[in-house]
This record gives sequence, structure tokens and C-alpha cells, in this order.
Amino acid sequence: MLRTHTCGELRINNVGTEVTICGWIQKSRDLGGMTFIDLRDRYGVTQLVFNMETNSELCESVRKMGREFVIAITGKVTERSNKNAKIATGDIEIVAEKLELLNSAKTPPFTIEDESDGGDDLRMKYRYLDIRRNPVKNSLLLRHRLALETRNYLAGQEFIEVETPVLIKSTPEGARDFVVPSRMNQGEFYALPQSPQTFKQLLMVAGMDRYYQIVKCFRDEDLRADRQPEFTQIDCEMSFITQEDILQTFEGLAVHLFKTVKGLDLPKFPRITYAEAMENYGNDKPDTRFDMKFFYPQFPKVGFSVIENADLVVSIVAKNCSEFTRKQIDELTEWVKRPQIGAGGLIYVRYNLDGTVKSSVDKFYSEEQLRETFGSANAEKGDLVLVLTGAKAKTLKAMSELRLEMGNRLGLRKKEEFKPLWVLDFPLFEFNDEDNRLYAMHHPFTSPHTEDIALLDTNPVAVRANAYDMVINGVEIGGGSIRIFNKELQAKMFNLLGFTPDEAQEQFGFLMNAFEYGAPPHGGLALGFDRLCAMFGGSDSIRDYIAFPKNNSGRDVMIDSPSPINPVQLKELGIAVSGK
Amino acid sequence: MLRTHTCGELRINNVGTEVTICGWIQKSRDLGGMTFIDLRDRYGVTQLVFNMETNSELCESVRKMGREFVIAITGKVTERSNKNAKIATGDIEIVAEKLELLNSAKTPPFTIEDESDGGDDLRMKYRYLDIRRNPVKNSLLLRHRLALETRNYLAGQEFIEVETPVLIKSTPEGARDFVVPSRMNQGEFYALPQSPQTFKQLLMVAGMDRYYQIVKCFRDEDLRADRQPEFTQIDCEMSFITQEDILQTFEGLAVHLFKTVKGLDLPKFPRITYAEAMENYGNDKPDTRFDMKFFYPQFPKVGFSVIENADLVVSIVAKNCSEFTRKQIDELTEWVKRPQIGAGGLIYVRYNLDGTVKSSVDKFYSEEQLRETFGSANAEKGDLVLVLTGAKAKTLKAMSELRLEMGNRLGLRKKEEFKPLWVLDFPLFEFNDEDNRLYAMHHPFTSPHTEDIALLDTNPVAVRANAYDMVINGVEIGGGSIRIFNKELQAKMFNLLGFTPDEAQEQFGFLMNAFEYGAPPHGGLALGFDRLCAMFGGSDSIRDYIAFPKNNSGRDVMIDSPSPINPVQLKELGIAVSGK
Repeated sequence: MLRTHTCGELRINNVGTEVTICGWIQKSRDLGGMTFIDLRDRYGVTQLVFNMETNSELCESVRKMGREFVIAITGKVTERSNKNAKIATGDIEIVAEKLELLNSAKTPPFTIEDESDGGDDLRMKYRYLDIRRNPVKNSLLLRHRLALETRNYLAGQEFIEVETPVLIKSTPEGARDFVVPSRMNQGEFYALPQSPQTFKQLLMVAGMDRYYQIVKCFRDEDLRADRQPEFTQIDCEMSFITQEDILQTFEGLAVHLFKTVKGLDLPKFPRITYAEAMENYGNDKPDTRFDMKFFYPQFPKVGFSVIENADLVVSIVAKNCSEFTRKQIDELTEWVKRPQIGAGGLIYVRYNLDGTVKSSVDKFYSEEQLRETFGSANAEKGDLVLVLTGAKAKTLKAMSELRLEMGNRLGLRKKEEFKPLWVLDFPLFEFNDEDNRLYAMHHPFTSPHTEDIALLDTNPVAVRANAYDMVINGVEIGGGSIRIFNKELQAKMFNLLGFTPDEAQEQFGFLMNAFEYGAPPHGGLALGFDRLCAMFGGSDSIRDYIAFPKNNSGRDVMIDSPSPINPVQLKELGIAVSGK
Repeated sequence: MLRTHTCGELRINNVGTEVTICGWIQKSRDLGGMTFIDLRDRYGVTQLVFNMETNSELCESVRKMGREFVIAITGKVTERSNKNAKIATGDIEIVAEKLELLNSAKTPPFTIEDESDGGDDLRMKYRYLDIRRNPVKNSLLLRHRLALETRNYLAGQEFIEVETPVLIKSTPEGARDFVVPSRMNQGEFYALPQSPQTFKQLLMVAGMDRYYQIVKCFRDEDLRADRQPEFTQIDCEMSFITQEDILQTFEGLAVHLFKTVKGLDLPKFPRITYAEAMENYGNDKPDTRFDMKFFYPQFPKVGFSVIENADLVVSIVAKNCSEFTRKQIDELTEWVKRPQIGAGGLIYVRYNLDGTVKSSVDKFYSEEQLRETFGSANAEKGDLVLVLTGAKAKTLKAMSELRLEMGNRLGLRKKEEFKPLWVLDFPLFEFNDEDNRLYAMHHPFTSPHTEDIALLDTNPVAVRANAYDMVINGVEIGGGSIRIFNKELQAKMFNLLGFTPDEAQEQFGFLMNAFEYGAPPHGGLALGFDRLCAMFGGSDSIRDYIAFPKNNSGRDVMIDSPSPINPVQLKELGIAVSGK
């Protein structure tokens, strides 16, 4: 090694030792007689001292070096007179005796500080400099620890890591595939996997019993702020299990990660059904760091059409908000009327501290009628009730958003509080009005509740699936299901999803055939690893937890990809760019 | 769990316990009064007993079940009268009390036994059945253990696992890229990485200090028996190191893997230079499980053109082979004359047990002349000297092959013996006669020996690189180099490799630019993980160590991929299949 120590490890007990450390010049302070350098590497920062009196040549040469120069320095560890409690090495400094310039550096295009002056685009272009900054570096170190602890836990539970192929087969179902033209089989294409779903099921047929993989997956979707064309999953599958075993195993994983990585003890995860989640929170991934459950008020008939003609009337009680000003209420009203939320307006009822109840609909309802309507809503003196009305699905969604917004405004969504839960019994199908057909809510391999199988023919949308999501703080961290392992039932699913037998055979024949050779009962789960990392880091955005992310147009601006390829390559592949 | 125990864990101390196990019917023996079933899962095999007298119904129903049926069985663990020492559960059996059919199975297309009756193609098509066989299953379990121990070791050495992107940029240098058309950037393509080389170097510039990844890489090459279009590397890079640090670190990894996975203590790895390897073995990845080093005999001038006009005359001494029959020698001669080896013929010299020396060239050389020629070749009574002559490169290669073949014939290449070594000081370039240009022997980022830098301008093929390979038993397990971290030297390399400055900038600009912002001294190494697994498993073929491999046409015959994609997909991507 070119160093004896890192920039993060010297302590008071190293005083007197001769050491060599290497790193980047973070900061240089020329105080005339002395120059102080903060030298940085992955492990920390150490202060170097250059003394003009005792070694003017060395001091002058370091003064010529700019930020981000790479140097090796040899010297004696000395106790600092002016200790810095903010850094781990703050008790000591190194009195420089020898200086080696390892590499010079142009002035970086933005400051390498926790709070940088660089905009997003600039930092992405120079991602290798951005990663030098603590927040990004620490995000990547956190990701490493989470991957390591995930592997430790799963290996301890007899899970086997198996690599599934990246060059697979395109299936029109679901999101769009990225495809890869085959040179050796011209006119044919591989696809990149959206998930290793079929392969992990085949591994169960193969008897592997417990499989896991931390694996890249790919979706060619129009990108939103928090989506990446390539993303990473913790992908798992188990045989000879019930749903309960899966919930226990992966609750155990989450508990292990919180304990080992954050030092937190999570309590047992509450479980609610999809139906309960929708009723109480209007959302299948509720943020349960705060209560504020939905209440469905039954207003008396007084001829108020906004309420009486509405599909749905739903309310929440904001505790201790009766003193909201007119301005605050107007703001909230504007907020719910934004196109993203789309409510027609906001009705409120104040439970004033003086005991009176006043509302925005006083001209329709007496105080007595309001008290009766919200009698079981748990509204008390000092509370503010907010009511939305309208079409069912839209209003549930709007109220879910309003609930989260109130949680934000009231500081109820604390970054360092973690409230996990399981959401169970998802519907097997969702009906799409546009193309008038059923879609699999989870995926086509999900098994129905045994007691709902009869409904497959009569009322498929009422069929509950053996499907579950792990939700933490309003974020769907992962989900899975107990799979169908019977060829007939799988064929029936494909039929209900509008596949002809030929289409089903063409696309999933290898899986259905495999089911004929002794498929064990099995099920599994996949966790979104990028999102898990962001949640552990207390961030809403996954991008800083990915070393080299792409932007919203799917471009890597650092390497300038994608890019045109040369005509020889195209010709070898037997493809042409259309219209060029 | 549907089971209380696996099929591999019951022992004599479990006798008397009521258990439930699940698995596949491996074998069923109907002995009239009793039926014995071998039930198999990932963990082992357990014998089940069904008694016709005490429970005829149960016994009859299990007799109807065929091989590979999936069942759950409940019963009492009992000591076997007829113990089977070959299996871990051989002391006990389960007397069946309850039988549940979990799934039936068609008769598998080949036998699920250690030695199967299925051919390669059939087993690949039904890979999910092939994996049920012990040899394949154990190969995948071995791979899992090697990955786990690799991660444990590297994490213990402060290496950080960082995922580099899969959708990157195509570069014409090196092997052919697989490309991925971009829908959002029509006419442009991503490429799949042949290795994360540039990204890991950027991570060093980013200050990550020690990086590793077990990562899929891709090469669109015409496939040989032991190549796969997607393969896996253990990819590593370190900063602030010398070559010695890299050798120590990864020798440590190999020692750790052999110790933890095979229980073997490896001695310190010998180190030889590339020049020595070529001189002694005609091969940069010598199999050193046996000696048989090359000897270059200096024959006296007697007018024998085969020797005197040859570019190169090289020999090996096969110990204790003087008694080889005429037939054996003829066979060897035919062997070296095959087109794959391409020698013109084989000269031999016998050091007979009676003290005489006889050769195939007795008419040109006296016994005395032969003794003198091979005086320092260490040939003794009982040995056989084999000589090849011809053009230098071709003859070295032929002799290297002959040496390995003799090792095989003499049983000197033992599967369970492991002889690792480091080969150092590879040439920086190799000259290609066909297109009359230099190619990078390792890759364009490899640094030259400091003392050879002057030769870059005068005699580039003589420049030695700071490049090293880890070789075990004649297999190149991995290799790497100390990198160039200086923009000018990197630009000079590209120039020597025939890149114009514009081409270099276009393809590697992001890396060269990064070097301007404070690149630390760094280097690294990549190990071929598939090959490492095969070597640990004692196999020459990597295919059984990959869960779902592709065949030599790059096809996955199980999922039937690649395959045509529909015209809508092509249109969305802005590409067309040529000539269709």
C-alpha cells in the first residue's frame, strides 16, 4: 500500500507514530506561518500541518496545490491543541515531513461539499466527482451494507443464490421489454428480464427449495422522476411453504436489516387486508406513521346535492387543527382542486376549542346534525374535520393524497420513524375499462384464495389472491404471492386474461410444461432494492442510491449513452434503423 | 412450512419422533407386503416405509404414484434394520401414517439419477429436471458457496460492492457488443458491458478506494464449447496500491476459498514472468501440477535439415517412458500431426533402462552426440525425450499441447490437486500481422513498466506491462493490471493502438476527462467466476455451473430464445429487420 493508514483511522493513541496517508485535498488554509490541509479519502478527513518555519520548501509546494489534488503525505501524528469534535480524527493532526504529488486536478465544476453548488445535470455529468461528496458516498456505502446483510440473513436461512439469465425471451404482457438483436439468429431477439419470475418458479420445479438473488431488472417505460430503466430487486422464492412462512421469513429479513444497519428494533408487523387498506386509507400502501383513518359520514337528507348526489363522501379528522386560519383552509382547498388531485372542493367542520361546531356547510346542516353525523368519527374539541365528495375511486385517491399532505403539514411523517405493515388479500384481477378486459393485479402466476375459486367463472374481480405487499411508511417495499403450481389452474388464468391457448403456450409453454413434471407448492416475493436503500437513507429519491443512474430520458449523460452505432454493427446484426 | 424436516436431516437420535417431510419420489420398490419409497429434496433422500398389513389403503395409493410425484408424508422415525451407510439418513426410515399428493408428474424424459440416460440437448431443454440431478444441483450449490465466501472475504477487506450499469455505451474496440435499441432515443443504442472496466476505474476516481462486484458480462462472439454469451466475473479494483498489494489480496481470496469451500491449505503462490512461462511451458497459463519443462537442444551440425533449418527445436523429457511401445509412439506422432496441433512429425530419443540411448534420428546422430545434446536436459535411464521442430510460435504451441497431452496420458493432471501461480510482466502490446497494427494484450488502460516507458516510441512490443494473471492447473482464473492514471500516458496508449485523438475522445473521453480531476493510483483484477466454479468442481466445462446456460448457437432451448418479436415492438423501437 502507498499508505500506512487511511484518512479516517488515526486517534489520540496514534500520537507519536510516523505515518503515511493518501487522499484528496479537501481544503487548504494558508495562515502565513502555517498551512493546514484537510486530506480526504473514503474513510474520513485528517488534518495536515505544514510549518513555514521548520520546512518552508514543503510548505510552499503544498500551497501551490489546489482542491482535489491527490497527494501522499508522511509525517508524525501529533495531538491537536484545537480539537475538532465534529470529525473522528479531530483529536490529532499530522505534521508533514514528506509530500508526494500523486496527481493534479483541474478545479472541479462544482464544490465537493455536503451541500454542493452544482445542479443535478452537472453533477450527473461528473458523477465520479459527485460520488466524492459525503451524501452520495454514504448512500452507496449504505447500499453495500444492506446488500451484505440481506445476503447474510438469506444464506443463514438456507437460501441459495442462483444467477438467472439476462438474455431471455420477450413477452408482450406487462411493461415494454428492452430487446437485444441476435447476430447468430438473425431476425430474432433476446429480451432483458423485467423480473426473473419464470426462472425462479422453474428453480422451484427443479427442487432448489429456497432461491434468492439480488438482480438487475429492466423495463422500457416512460420514466418518471423515481423510475430507472434498470433497477435492482431482492428476488426470492420458497417451496413447501404457506403464505405465513413467507411473511415470517421476510418480516425477519426487514427486522434483521433495521437491527444490523440502523440499530432499530422493529415490532411485529401489523397485517391488514387490501380491502381494509382501501377503506381506511384509500391506498394499498398506507403510511401508518400517523392515524387519521377515513370516516364515511352519513349526512341527513337536506337537499344538499354536493353530498347527496355524490358516489362517495369521505372525511378525515385532523387532530388539533380547529384553529387553522381561513388562509390555511383556502390553501388546502386550492391544493385539493389542483389537477393532480382533482377534487371539486373541500368541506370542513371545526370542532372549536370553545365547544362549538362550525362548518363550511352551516347553511345546510345544523350544529346538532353535524355532531350526529360525525358522532363516531372521534372528533373532539380542537379538531378539524375535512370532507371530500365525488366519484368513488377518484375521491378515495384524493382523500388519500389529502391525508398524506396533512401528515406532511403536521410533521407526522417523521424520517427516522419506521412503520412497516403487511397488506394482504389483494384482488386477483383488475378490470380495465379501456380495453374491456381483466389484467392480473400482481402477475398471471398468482394463486387465488381456495375459497374464491368458484368465483373465477362468475365474478372474477371479486376473487382474492394469495398476494401480499410489504409496506413501510407509505412505500411499497416489495410484494409477492403464493403461485399457481397446477397446469389446469394456470391455463384457466391465462384464459381469463384473454390469452388463447396458443398464445399462452407460445409465451409461457415452458413454464406450464414444467408444471407437469412435479411442481411443488411454492411462493415468493421481490423487494425493490433501490427503494429499500432510499428508505433506509431517509430519502424519497432512489437516484442517489444508484452509482451511475440514468436521467428521465433514459440517458447516461456521463458516458453519453445511448449513442448511434456504426453501420457495420447494424449489418452484422441484420437490422436497420427505420427512416434513416 | 408444509414439512417439519427436510429429506436430509433425520438421524438416529430422531427415532420415535412424528415428522412430516415433503419431496419427490426418487424410487419406489414394491416388495409385496411392504413398499419402500426414496423421497428426495434438495437436502437429501429419506426412506419411507408403507406396510400393506397395517395400512393397506395408504400402501395401495402410494403404489399408484410414479417417479417424480410430489408428496407430503407424515409418520414416525424408526431405526432401520438394514442400514445404508451411503446416505446421511441411512440409519432411519419413516413408517408412513399419512400421505398427501401435492402434485403428480409425467414420466420425465430422462432419468433423474447421477448418471442420466438423457443426452445433452434433451437435458438442456428440460433443464428444470436436469437441476434435480445431484451433479447439477451440487454444482449450483458450490457456486452459491463460492459467491458467499468471496463476498465475505472481500467485505472483510473493506471492499464495497457497487452495481455498475448494464445499459452502457458501445465501443468498437475488443469483442463484439450486444446492443439494445433505445425507444426513447430512436436510432441510438445501448450496449451490454463486456466488463465494468471503465466504471470501476471511474469509481476509483470517485474515491471509492476498494470496489468489487460479482457481475454479468456479455460478449457477442462465435461460441466455442466453453464460452457463453453471458458470463460472470468477480470484478475488483483498488486505489493507493502497488501490484504487490493486488497479488497479496487476491492470492488471499483464493486461499480463503480453497480453505473454506474445499478445506485445503494452499501454499504461497509461485510467481513467474510471462517470458519464463513461454520459455518453460510455451504457454502463458502453464499447468504446473507436473514439471516436464521445455528444453531447447543444440544439435551438432550434421546436415539434417528438419532440425537445422527449423526456427525452433524444443523438447520435453517424459520420465519413465522409455518403454513406450512403437504403437504408443506412433499414436503420439499421429496426435501431433492432427491439424489442431499441426506439427510435421515427432522425433524421440529413448534413454533405455539398459543404459543405451536410441532415437528416431539415429541415422543422423550418434549415441554420443545425442547424450551431449541432451546433457543438461535431466534425461535419465528410463526416460523418453520428445522433440518438435518448426516455426517458432506454432512449435511452442504444439509442444505446449504435447506436454499437456503427456500429462494426461501419464495421469499427472490430478483433479484434486491444485497448483496455482501468478504469471507476471505480460507484454503491453501484441502485434497483429493481418491488419498490421498493435493491440493491447490486456486492455488499453494497462500501465507499462516505468523502466520500459522509453521503449514505447522505439520498440513497443518489447514493453512489459504491469499486468498479471492468476493461473490454476493450466486455467487462467483471472487477470488484471495496474492502470494508467495519467491522461497524457493514456492518450499515448490510444495513439499507439491506432485511435485518432477524436476517436479516443469519442469512445473514452469520459474516462480521460475524469483523469484530469485527481485520479488516484489504482489497479485491479477480474476473475472468471464460471470457470472458477468449474475448477472447484473438478470439471472442464462451465456449463453445469450455470443454472440456465445457452447452447453453442447462443440459444436457450428451454425457453426457445431468441425469438422473433412483433412488428409493433419493432416499430416502437424505430428499427427494422433487414431483408425481411
